[in-house]
Amino acid sequence: MKYSIGIDIGGTNTVSGLVDENGNILSSFSFSTKDYDYLETYLEEITDSIIGLIIKCDDKESIQGIGIGAPNGNYYHGTIEHAPNLKFKGIIPVKEHIERKLSEKGYHYNVTITNDANAAALGEMIYGGAKGMKDFMIITLGTGVGSGIVVDGRLVYGSDGFAGEVGHTIVQAEGRLCGCGRKGCVETYSSVTGVTKTAIELLEASNTPSLLRNIPHDKIGGHTIYEAALKGDKIALQCFDVAAKMLAIGMANAVAVTSPKKIFLFGGLTKAEDILMIPLKKYFEENLFVVFQNKIELEISSLNENNAAILGAAALTF
Amino acid sequence: MKYSIGIDIGGTNTVSGLVDENGNILSSFSFSTKDYDYLETYLEEITDSIIGLIIKCDDKESIQGIGIGAPNGNYYHGTIEHAPNLKFKGIIPVKEHIERKLSEKGYHYNVTITNDANAAALGEMIYGGAKGMKDFMIITLGTGVGSGIVVDGRLVYGSDGFAGEVGHTIVQAEGRLCGCGRKGCVETYSSVTGVTKTAIELLEASNTPSLLRNIPHDKIGGHTIYEAALKGDKIALQCFDVAAKMLAIGMANAVAVTSPKKIFLFGGLTKAEDILMIPLKKYFEENLFVVFQNKIELEISSLNENNAAILGAAALTF
Repeated sequence: MKYSIGIDIGGTNTVSGLVDENGNILSSFSFSTKDYDYLETYLEEITDSIIGLIIKCDDKESIQGIGIGAPNGNYYHGTIEHAPNLKFKGIIPVKEHIERKLSEKGYHYNVTITNDANAAALGEMIYGGAKGMKDFMIITLGTGVGSGIVVDGRLVYGSDGFAGEVGHTIVQAEGRLCGCGRKGCVETYSSVTGVTKTAIELLEASNTPSLLRNIPHDKIGGHTIYEAALKGDKIALQCFDVAAKMLAIGMANAVAVTSPKKIFLFGGLTKAEDILMIPLKKYFEENLFVVFQNKIELEISSLNENNAAILGAAALTF
Repeated sequence: MKYSIGIDIGGTNTVSGLVDENGNILSSFSFSTKDYDYLETYLEEITDSIIGLIIKCDDKESIQGIGIGAPNGNYYHGTIEHAPNLKFKGIIPVKEHIERKLSEKGYHYNVTITNDANAAALGEMIYGGAKGMKDFMIITLGTGVGSGIVVDGRLVYGSDGFAGEVGHTIVQAEGRLCGCGRKGCVETYSSVTGVTKTAIELLEASNTPSLLRNIPHDKIGGHTIYEAALKGDKIALQCFDVAAKMLAIGMANAVAVTSPKKIFLFGGLTKAEDILMIPLKKYFEENLFVVFQNKIELEISSLNENNAAILGAAALTF
């Protein structure tokens, strides 16, 4: 049996797991990313968690390596570059740092890194609904909107390792300001943050009665909007409608580039299920170029959100 | 020396050529596609042109096959499907037809088909500026806007063979009606037809003096607008500005999907050179996601427009 160590670096938590080649997570660690102000101590903590997992493995020789999924992780450079949701800024040579730290402690393993959405795509391809599929896409809907794209059985990294940023494609020229500094990106409408922005805009722009009016603006978020939508709240439903429409255009555009067979949706916002998926499917078909209509399935990933990130990261080494 | 026969099926003309592996076109035929009302006689004419070229080749054994570039050509199915600019509608099994017709006349060759922009990408990769490049894109700016996308050294066909339709990505939700029936596609702004639509819209929406006011609307086209733009005509320049802006967003979005090193521009509209390229480069950088900024070159293809299509089609068989 082959083993791997998969690590998911998130803005909130960092989770690592010892994974076997069948996709079983044999042991895992988790700690809060936000507790670390200094890169050095943060990387030290990751290294310690890796060593903890190595020690737990009965067959250390069979560990294929360490795989890391991280926001703005770069496969070619082994770096995290300008990740907006991490405290650590600039270009961080994560691969180099962790390999050196491991080596200093007598452990010699290769570290491979990619962005979190690419890791999710690998997880989907090896352990999830995309098994045996050659052309597919995964869209991650969390604080941001990410994507991992597989063409002809291979993850698309592109010339610089940053391919797969469907969240930062523009669907409305001169549209709403995005966190990235440009206007009209999918992410600014269809992330959890985007849905929240829409709620506040709609509440301020009208007098339509809404359950959300009872909640202070800074407490409005994906979950409260979803709860209100479940109760038929017009404004809350419209928030998901806007998110679905803009995401649908972004996805239809990405389809026109790589023509996937299926698109998997993944992450926080997919918990809204039909409230998101019904308008998403409708707008997606409406916005597809004719040769792609009625061909492409949309499906919520069946992988457990926490596990998928670790599994995908681990799959980098298999 | 290996040889191939490359055929470019266009809405206006059909051109075929005998090509050697160094990219020399040794002999070629051309006839008007528009003269043929019946598919059967059209395919007969193509077959005759192929046989004419086979006869001209001294070393028939070394002909690798027949490659065809065509609008909506499908590599997997060997078909042309619902091509808007051809008289022949529906799904045409071109590969099967031509192979059978050749075979009936005693010639046994494989026929391979792809869309015209993919053929141009292959031409660029094998004989043009993309030699040795692993990740690039070509955008064809003619009556329509097409694209061919290369990822990790391989042309992207996608799950159904129709990948690479950047022209039919939406950059303005609820924007101008496109010939494909949807709204806000790149093609409806940035094709020769799109530039012409912009001219007529602008002429009708204002009283701004313009050289184009002396021309009947049905005589306004890419060339007249370009001529006026060269003389500093405000409306003509604005037509190219709109085309450049919308194309720039579509290209920036496609970059976020596959992260190419370079984008080649090809076809009729590129004859405008700086009038197109200066605003295009400006808007492209403005609309790129931060990780891609100042990394991606834009370049007008150096391949001769007529030759590139034949060379690319021929390259399908090498």
